[in-house]
Amino acid sequence: MTRVGVVGAGMIGRDHVRRLTSVISRVTVTAVADVDAGAAALVAASTGAAVHPDGLAVIAAADVDAVVVCSWGDTHEEYVLAAIAAGKPVFCEKPLATSPQACLRIVEAEAARGTRLVQVGYMRRYDAAYRALKKVLDSGAIGAPLMMHCAHRNAAVPDFYRPENIITDTAVHEIDMVRWMFGTEITAVRVLRPRASRNAGAIPDPLLLVLELANEVLVDVEISVNARYGYDIRGEILGENGTAALGDQNPITVRRAGHLTSPVPADWRERFGPAYDVELREWVAGHMPDAPGAWDGYAASVVSDAAVQSLRTGERVPITLAARPKLH
Amino acid sequence: MTRVGVVGAGMIGRDHVRRLTSVISRVTVTAVADVDAGAAALVAASTGAAVHPDGLAVIAAADVDAVVVCSWGDTHEEYVLAAIAAGKPVFCEKPLATSPQACLRIVEAEAARGTRLVQVGYMRRYDAAYRALKKVLDSGAIGAPLMMHCAHRNAAVPDFYRPENIITDTAVHEIDMVRWMFGTEITAVRVLRPRASRNAGAIPDPLLLVLELANEVLVDVEISVNARYGYDIRGEILGENGTAALGDQNPITVRRAGHLTSPVPADWRERFGPAYDVELREWVAGHMPDAPGAWDGYAASVVSDAAVQSLRTGERVPITLAARPKLH
Amino acid sequence: MTRVGVVGAGMIGRDHVRRLTSVISRVTVTAVADVDAGAAALVAASTGAAVHPDGLAVIAAADVDAVVVCSWGDTHEEYVLAAIAAGKPVFCEKPLATSPQACLRIVEAEAARGTRLVQVGYMRRYDAAYRALKKVLDSGAIGAPLMMHCAHRNAAVPDFYRPENIITDTAVHEIDMVRWMFGTEITAVRVLRPRASRNAGAIPDPLLLVLELANEVLVDVEISVNARYGYDIRGEILGENGTAALGDQNPITVRRAGHLTSPVPADWRERFGPAYDVELREWVAGHMPDAPGAWDGYAASVVSDAAVQSLRTGERVPITLAARPKLH
Amino acid sequence: MTRVGVVGAGMIGRDHVRRLTSVISRVTVTAVADVDAGAAALVAASTGAAVHPDGLAVIAAADVDAVVVCSWGDTHEEYVLAAIAAGKPVFCEKPLATSPQACLRIVEAEAARGTRLVQVGYMRRYDAAYRALKKVLDSGAIGAPLMMHCAHRNAAVPDFYRPENIITDTAVHEIDMVRWMFGTEITAVRVLRPRASRNAGAIPDPLLLVLELANEVLVDVEISVNARYGYDIRGEILGENGTAALGDQNPITVRRAGHLTSPVPADWRERFGPAYDVELREWVAGHMPDAPGAWDGYAASVVSDAAVQSLRTGERVPITLAARPKLH
Ligand SMILES: [Mg+2]
Ligand SMILES: [Mg+2]
Ligand SMILES: [Mg+2]
Ligand SMILES: [Mg+2]
Repeated sequence: MTRVGVVGAGMIGRDHVRRLTSVISRVTVTAVADVDAGAAALVAASTGAAVHPDGLAVIAAADVDAVVVCSWGDTHEEYVLAAIAAGKPVFCEKPLATSPQACLRIVEAEAARGTRLVQVGYMRRYDAAYRALKKVLDSGAIGAPLMMHCAHRNAAVPDFYRPENIITDTAVHEIDMVRWMFGTEITAVRVLRPRASRNAGAIPDPLLLVLELANEVLVDVEISVNARYGYDIRGEILGENGTAALGDQNPITVRRAGHLTSPVPADWRERFGPAYDVELREWVAGHMPDAPGAWDGYAASVVSDAAVQSLRTGERVPITLAARPKLH
Repeated sequence: MTRVGVVGAGMIGRDHVRRLTSVISRVTVTAVADVDAGAAALVAASTGAAVHPDGLAVIAAADVDAVVVCSWGDTHEEYVLAAIAAGKPVFCEKPLATSPQACLRIVEAEAARGTRLVQVGYMRRYDAAYRALKKVLDSGAIGAPLMMHCAHRNAAVPDFYRPENIITDTAVHEIDMVRWMFGTEITAVRVLRPRASRNAGAIPDPLLLVLELANEVLVDVEISVNARYGYDIRGEILGENGTAALGDQNPITVRRAGHLTSPVPADWRERFGPAYDVELREWVAGHMPDAPGAWDGYAASVVSDAAVQSLRTGERVPITLAARPKLH
Repeated sequence: MTRVGVVGAGMIGRDHVRRLTSVISRVTVTAVADVDAGAAALVAASTGAAVHPDGLAVIAAADVDAVVVCSWGDTHEEYVLAAIAAGKPVFCEKPLATSPQACLRIVEAEAARGTRLVQVGYMRRYDAAYRALKKVLDSGAIGAPLMMHCAHRNAAVPDFYRPENIITDTAVHEIDMVRWMFGTEITAVRVLRPRASRNAGAIPDPLLLVLELANEVLVDVEISVNARYGYDIRGEILGENGTAALGDQNPITVRRAGHLTSPVPADWRERFGPAYDVELREWVAGHMPDAPGAWDGYAASVVSDAAVQSLRTGERVPITLAARPKLH
Repeated sequence: MTRVGVVGAGMIGRDHVRRLTSVISRVTVTAVADVDAGAAALVAASTGAAVHPDGLAVIAAADVDAVVVCSWGDTHEEYVLAAIAAGKPVFCEKPLATSPQACLRIVEAEAARGTRLVQVGYMRRYDAAYRALKKVLDSGAIGAPLMMHCAHRNAAVPDFYRPENIITDTAVHEIDMVRWMFGTEITAVRVLRPRASRNAGAIPDPLLLVLELANEVLVDVEISVNARYGYDIRGEILGENGTAALGDQNPITVRRAGHLTSPVPADWRERFGPAYDVELREWVAGHMPDAPGAWDGYAASVVSDAAVQSLRTGERVPITLAARPKLH
């Protein structure tokens, strides 16, 4: 039984607590902290976890084997570094930290410690369809990859969204997925602005990201965050000898009034709910091979920063990463 | 340039005239007759064809090389026999004649003449999807056939429909298709009555036909003639090693308001329009190999009669055919 | 934490133990018995459960709150009755018992006790696609149901399969699904024999079951147990105003060498794995509303018996059930 | 009966002759010329057309009502101008002429004449799926358009292909389609080079074209000319409230050996054959509203030139068109 301490008991934190207690076996939540005492109390009431004064106390607690960090992004660096210092595995919701420099400090601290302890909450890697897609790619069935076409569409986004959130909160999932899918780094990014949707208020939506990879594969990614009609995730890889694409997963098909119809998922919970379950289940079980680690959190941060810059200037932005530690 | 005489200038007749004059090349309509002089005059005006006093005069005309019979079913026997006697190819809209006995007289007259002259208007054999299905079956890719599941759904049918029309006007297309698909005869038929749709008024709709073939393949066919939502034709063959099915042919896919939708055809014109064109084009060109001939018209008539009997009694009805002439 | 005792530690039993310990939270396996001491020891080793001399001892154990019965079918009646007598919830793998009479004794024992304690392992009711289908049907979107077309195809079945197993082990899932989908009883069954697959050895495969329901809906079910190409489950309901069907759930689509291809599931584990998880999760959580209970086990047994009789005689077999207790 | 003169009897010319004589009614081929006397003789033999010494003689012939130009691109300008001078409708295979300047001379000559006489062979406008897509867009069902994603994949291309042919022979179909679909002009183009396929020899393949439209819609177009697996045409429009996409048109679906498969078209003949038929049929019938005219040929030429420039430089190239004559 793994004993988990949870730092941050907001919406995402409570959802992870629900998952740890109601969905995944062999794990228990023993400690919790939140700046909002009421939120922490809610978790304590549903789990029997002890409420601690702050995240550092949770990480230090003797009955905590592993840590889940779901607090505000600005606090991630401090908590993740503390977990590394304590030698405890830490699952940190994205972003790993709020600047490439902070991410790099985590990468270096973990490398200095000599063991992989950090996992970042990029859950595409745990989705059955993306895994099947990667398996086909890796099998060589479609030959060497040349391009990938992606789309990420949200029906709507929260009011707080500003232009850079389209990159850092939404597109970042595609950025991580692409690095994982092709096993290589992104070397340049360009953000193009189509006609803006009037559903989007003041933010430029949709966007088209063009990512260049170290292996010369070119990836285009449509990001729409006010698509209205539903949540829709697409991806197709063009290889030298064929293509592989995420399929439509239609549980049912209705024919009525002159049309055949299937439901489109309403939001990410419906589309990726099982992937979130797998993500935490594999983390609890200690499977690390494909897990997004500190280096992945760092790389995502650098590419996101470059994309935000390109969104502002309209120019192509080349990307340079620090030297990759042997640990990764 | 083939010169065609048209007997019967009602809705179907005029549609064939349109096809012969506007869609198909190397053919011209030179003669027409109808009990309704106005209908014949319409065709004459649009084509330059001569109006004849009756169908026999059309068939006898010196400037008529081949005959299209679209008059009422009761008159088919007389006209088809006249065309055979005149040695002229005749395309007869279904049914070939209104009784098995009448059909058999045509089969025998044609056999006596020693040349295939008769084609019946079963146009499934000319549909690209059914042809692709048959090609897969014949290739052996799915192994020996064991079953076929079919559905034939009309959004609505004309007011004149009585229970037996569901068999003789609608299901008969499936009956002919099955004989052609498997290259064998139907040996027994049973008609089952599910709960009746309140959209169907006084007729029993839908029905489930169970057809037994000489090669022991079992075929079930749903016939719905008030399906409301559109026109829908399905067919799936189960073979020993796999299945082959008619696909969905969706020209476009729209995602809107939480759903992915594609159009369903409104009626047989939309679904089978191209098959009607191919049917007449191949007839004009003289391609006979896969064409439904007099024997097929006879067999369809016998099976239809048996199905009507089963619809009345609820019992399985075995089928016996006359000896098949060498010509077929 | 629910403490579960497991009676029968064969392949299915061990799979349920894995589910209870590795997939589902808030449950622990505390007791186990099997006629094969080695099988019981395996479960004990992986879970810490105590090995008991027999199933009755498991059911009686003080640290057992609820019972899972996965022993041979012949023993189900004894164990389920013992669990009812002990007032403990019991999840019994299908069949509930091996005769309608035995099932009815369980129904009556439970009714006498006055509480629902029995759940039978019909897991279609827990599959997301079937639930979505039922939701559409119940919404009235397609109007009153008239027919349902089903297919159940296994790539292959174990060597022990005899003709009646096609009904009692395979078709029985469809029988239970149909009763649940339409909320009514099956009143007659007929089993038709198409041409037999040479892949099937001595057993008649495929079969076509025709089920008549109390609400006059007619259901046809193809059962193939040597379909070779994969595991395939289909279902389409024809309503007065439209149709609803289980969709294709293709995680990926590959285009290669002139074809577009998607994977077909290899077996029931791949297709229904999540449904088995939901089934046990809801059982542990005590959700009973849609759960298949003792009455459902009884009805399935009666219909299966009738279908086996029809398979032998080729005749339609009417079905009569005992009076339904108020508890159900 | 329209009497058509054909200038150029190569592969495309003979295919159009076949279409005019075997597929389309109410038209006859009366005159032909080709620099290769044998090619012209072939057409004469199959149609009864008179062989003329050159294209100008065909255009001038008294028994020629309308002209089809299928000669080498370099000669198009001369023949199209001659047809305009003769006041005869002319269908000119793409390109209209081999430079923007030449195209503009044709535009101006036609404008001076005051009647629309010129049609260019861009046949996407005649494809049923593209027409359905445009109809949905124009209906407002998906709201104002924001982006379009396209792919054009050939299994292979002829040996003569050089880098610019990917633009001028292949991508040009997409360029014309986009202008027609959105009813507006392209204002800038950028061509990006992904990793090159080793199937493509020395040419850069695939390419990604990014087109900016006057209404701010952004269009990305993948062009692959050695995709190996088949011929594949995709298009999806993102609107403010939904999306509309070309569907998969699968005549049949086969399940075999663990996979569901459908055929992919082998080449443009299979995918767009019916569109070519409709194109010429509507031209013969004199339907002009949606037909690609001289202005469309000119605009395609300007955009193609800009794309070729971008392919060479990697830079975004803005596009400026001449003033549009009132005639268009
Ligand atoms: Mg996330
Ligand atoms: Mg017909
Ligand atoms: Mg089961
Ligand atoms: Mg062309």
